[in-house]
This record gives sequence, structure tokens and C-alpha cells, in this order.
Amino acid sequence: MGGSLGLALIQKGLAESVWGLGRNEGRLENARKAGVITHSTTDQAEAAKDAEIIVVGLPVERIPAAVVGLSASVSQGAVITDMGSVKEKIVTEIEAGLGDKSSLFIGSHPMCGSEKQGFESARVDLYEGATCAVTPTERSSNSACEKVVSFWESVGCRTLQFNPSEHDRIVARTSHVPHITASALCNMLDFECYSEKRDGMVATGFMGATRTATGDVENWLRIFLDNDKYVLKALGDLETSIGEVRRFLANEDEEGLKDWLERAALTRNRLADERAIARKREAPPE
Amino acid sequence: MGGSLGLALIQKGLAESVWGLGRNEGRLENARKAGVITHSTTDQAEAAKDAEIIVVGLPVERIPAAVVGLSASVSQGAVITDMGSVKEKIVTEIEAGLGDKSSLFIGSHPMCGSEKQGFESARVDLYEGATCAVTPTERSSNSACEKVVSFWESVGCRTLQFNPSEHDRIVARTSHVPHITASALCNMLDFECYSEKRDGMVATGFMGATRTATGDVENWLRIFLDNDKYVLKALGDLETSIGEVRRFLANEDEEGLKDWLERAALTRNRLADERAIARKREAPPE
Repeated sequence: MGGSLGLALIQKGLAESVWGLGRNEGRLENARKAGVITHSTTDQAEAAKDAEIIVVGLPVERIPAAVVGLSASVSQGAVITDMGSVKEKIVTEIEAGLGDKSSLFIGSHPMCGSEKQGFESARVDLYEGATCAVTPTERSSNSACEKVVSFWESVGCRTLQFNPSEHDRIVARTSHVPHITASALCNMLDFECYSEKRDGMVATGFMGATRTATGDVENWLRIFLDNDKYVLKALGDLETSIGEVRRFLANEDEEGLKDWLERAALTRNRLADERAIARKREAPPE
Repeated sequence: MGGSLGLALIQKGLAESVWGLGRNEGRLENARKAGVITHSTTDQAEAAKDAEIIVVGLPVERIPAAVVGLSASVSQGAVITDMGSVKEKIVTEIEAGLGDKSSLFIGSHPMCGSEKQGFESARVDLYEGATCAVTPTERSSNSACEKVVSFWESVGCRTLQFNPSEHDRIVARTSHVPHITASALCNMLDFECYSEKRDGMVATGFMGATRTATGDVENWLRIFLDNDKYVLKALGDLETSIGEVRRFLANEDEEGLKDWLERAALTRNRLADERAIARKREAPPE
């Protein structure tokens, strides 16, 4: 995701320079040749010095230490943000680590990305039309928040502001539990004996419903563990929902099941309509 | 699905004539003009007379009566099949209704189709590469089964044979429960207050996981009620699977959760590979 961000910043002419900070000089040099960064360094202080905005694109468990480390070298007026999928634990840890410098960090979660990793799969339009959640707290400064918002909007995102726990509560339902159901559908297939015939009965519906189950396991593991409180709450609601369907079937409650299916179809159709309208709203005037 | 079948039969030159049986003469005439049938009738006996193969494409609850009705007028050596998504109840009811004529019916379930209905959305390649389950019983004749198998293969399907209950047990997991989880994910979103902000956090992952929730409610309702036994069993396994994840999270069992996620990713990747290989195997030689 860092590669696509650099590519967008450079190709849209949004930044004078885009520095890549990493550990492997060869990889950094190749990223520069590929045009996703303009400069590179393996030195944290050099990367932070003179940067107007610093975006930390690391697995969630490594974000807090990186932000606190970078904060030692930033110049006046700089802001730091991140791209982590979970916010409450990260933001709490970072604010504890930054102390009275807390106002220079604003959490972000751009809702895009793909299963592919590395700068080789960078795409200039990855952020175009995506939602980016921005999660200021009472310790955040307005001007830092505005900078982060404009930054994401400059690469094409639509931004929405939440407090960190509100963000986590919602993504538990829109993203984390859907990943768990995808994995559960795959695992419960194995309650049946394996056979080529059984697998032959898997069609496009199943493949679509389980697409996310192939995502990076280490990364998702961290997300679930960091957002355990809200994921557990949402899983409880999922069990309630599945329990309802079991009762409809056990009692041959046709009306109840029909109503339940219709409500779901209505919600899904409303979401599809809203997304179509949002895309239209954000399309550049012709 | 009937429209796409007629279109494939006609365009591939597989049938001398393709009769459409329906209730609305205007619709039938338009279907004929659109090239998805060659002849039409609103009279069941006329449709059945001289047909070599009769395919009943009706909602599941209307299939048994239609098959039994048509069987009165078929000629020697004809076979009747259907396209219903559930097999045990249908086949049992049909064999009871047909009595010693049972051997002329063989159940089918072509695993394709789309959310779109009516002959206007017919596609000549809808059956190409799709799996079609064929479900003979001990009362079926081998020659009738072979005819039905060749029929589906002629329009591009790969066929797999199951007994009716085995079919229903498997599709509960590969198709019916995935539809229920899609609907449950939509309904549990509403456990959160509605807000445009909440909906804004729905991204492509959620939309992919819930695509099937928009399918025809009446049709799915019938499918769940007809396959209640195996759907209830599979929902029980889903609850077991969700319960496992709850325990991993509640006990911070990182290893357990990681193993669970990895198993799912392996299964999903194996399914994707098998589907790619099957497509390659069935591609015509260049």
C-alpha cells in the first residue's frame, strides 16, 4: 500500500519528494527505480527530518514503536499518520508513548489494498474513490487532523472521521467478521470428507463469499487479536443471527425466514446504491 | 436459466427443435423472436409429445407436479429432468407420483445462473464450464441417466453424480449456508445504528462476501425450507466454528487462531487451483 501511495503522490505531482524508509537498501533502490519513491534511506532520523507528513505503513503490531521512534526527529509542524486496520489499541499506545507530543499523530485507516504485496504491485489509482477513516482524539490538534484529511483526499480518498473505538466497533462488522465467516465457510467444508466430487460442487457463489480467506494470515491474526473486544461482540451478534435462522427452520416459520432474508436483501441493495452514488459524486466533472 | 439453455441448444445446433412451454403467449412469442426457443405452446401435452428430453426449469416447489403432469404425455424413450437446487424432497415426491414410470425422471442441478431472470438475460455460454450435479436413484434406468449426462455435457457442463441426499448435504455447505452467512452479515450490520458514516466503512471485501444476499428471496426461501435437515446440520457446524474463534480470542490463543486461519486459506487456495485446473482440462484443444 505504501508503493501505491508513493506512485500516486509522484504521478499527481503532489509532493516535492517522497522518501522511502526501509531496512533493505537493494529493495529501496529498486522501488526508486520503479518510480514509487524519489529518495530512500535506512535511517529513521534522516527520513523524519524535514518531512511534512509521515505515513507509517507497517503491520499493526509494529506501528506504535515506529511512530514514537520517528517523533524524536520530526520538524516543527510535521504530522505522522498510519495505515493500520485497527485503531483503539494503536492510538492509545502511541499517545502514551508520545506524551505531550501526542498532537502530532492522527490515526488513519485507508480502506483499500489488495492481497498482493510489495512495490511491484503498486497501482497509481489504488486510493481513488476508497474510504479513508481518520481517527482524531481529544488530544489531537485540529490543524494536524486537517492536514491528514487533505492528504488522503489529495490521493483520491473520501474521508470519514471516527473516534478510535467507534472505528474499531464498526470495522468489526464491516470487515473483520466477514473475514471470519469466509474462513469458517472454508473450514466447515472439511467437516465433510474431502473428495474431488465435493470440491466440484463449489461454484462462484462460494468462491465470492470466501475470497478474503486467502489474505495474509499473520496480518489478520494481529487485527483480530488487537480488536478482540469488538470482534467478540460482533461474533456474538452473528451467533444470534444464525440462531434466529435455526429457529425459523426448526419451526418451519416461513414468514419469519422470508422477512429475515428480505431485510438482508434490502440492506445489501441499499449499500450497493450508496456506493454507486458516492462514486458518481466523486467522479471528476467532465 | 431456461433461456440460456435454449440459446445454447439452438446456436450449437444440438437440437432439431426447442419447444418452450409457458402460460403467457406473448412472452413465449417474444422468446421465440429472441431465438431462445424454436417453437412454443401453452399446452403441456403438446410440449411433451415427441420430446426426446424435457427440462423442467421451475421454482423447486412447482417441479414435482410439473414432472408428474408431463409424464402422462411423453413418448417412448423420453427422459425428464429438472434444474432444482435441492434434490431429496423433489426426487422422492416425483418417484412417489410416477410410480412404475419413475425410471423416466433423473434429477439435475446445474450450478450456474445469475441474479438476472427472464429470457432477455439469456447467455449462450452460461453452462460452459459449470458443474451439473445429476442425481439418479436405484429406481433410475442407466440409459436415462446417460442421456441426461450427455445432454448437460453437450452444452458445456462438467457432470458429477450423487444420490439426492448426498447432493443436498454437500450443497448445504457449498451454497446454502454461504447464502445465510451473506444475509446474516447484512442483518447484523443493523445491530449498529444506521448512519451514512457506518455504511461508508463498507468496502469491497464486505460487498464480495454478501453478493448472494440479493438473490430472489422467494426462491431461496423454498431452497432453505426444502433442505432444512442438512442446512440445520451445517448451521450447527458453522456455530461450532464460530465458537472456536470466540474461544481463541477470549483465551488469547494466538497459535490456535493462526492455525485455524491457515487451514482456511489452504482450503480456499486448493479450491481456486482445482477450479483453474478443471477449466484448463475442459478448454477445447487449440
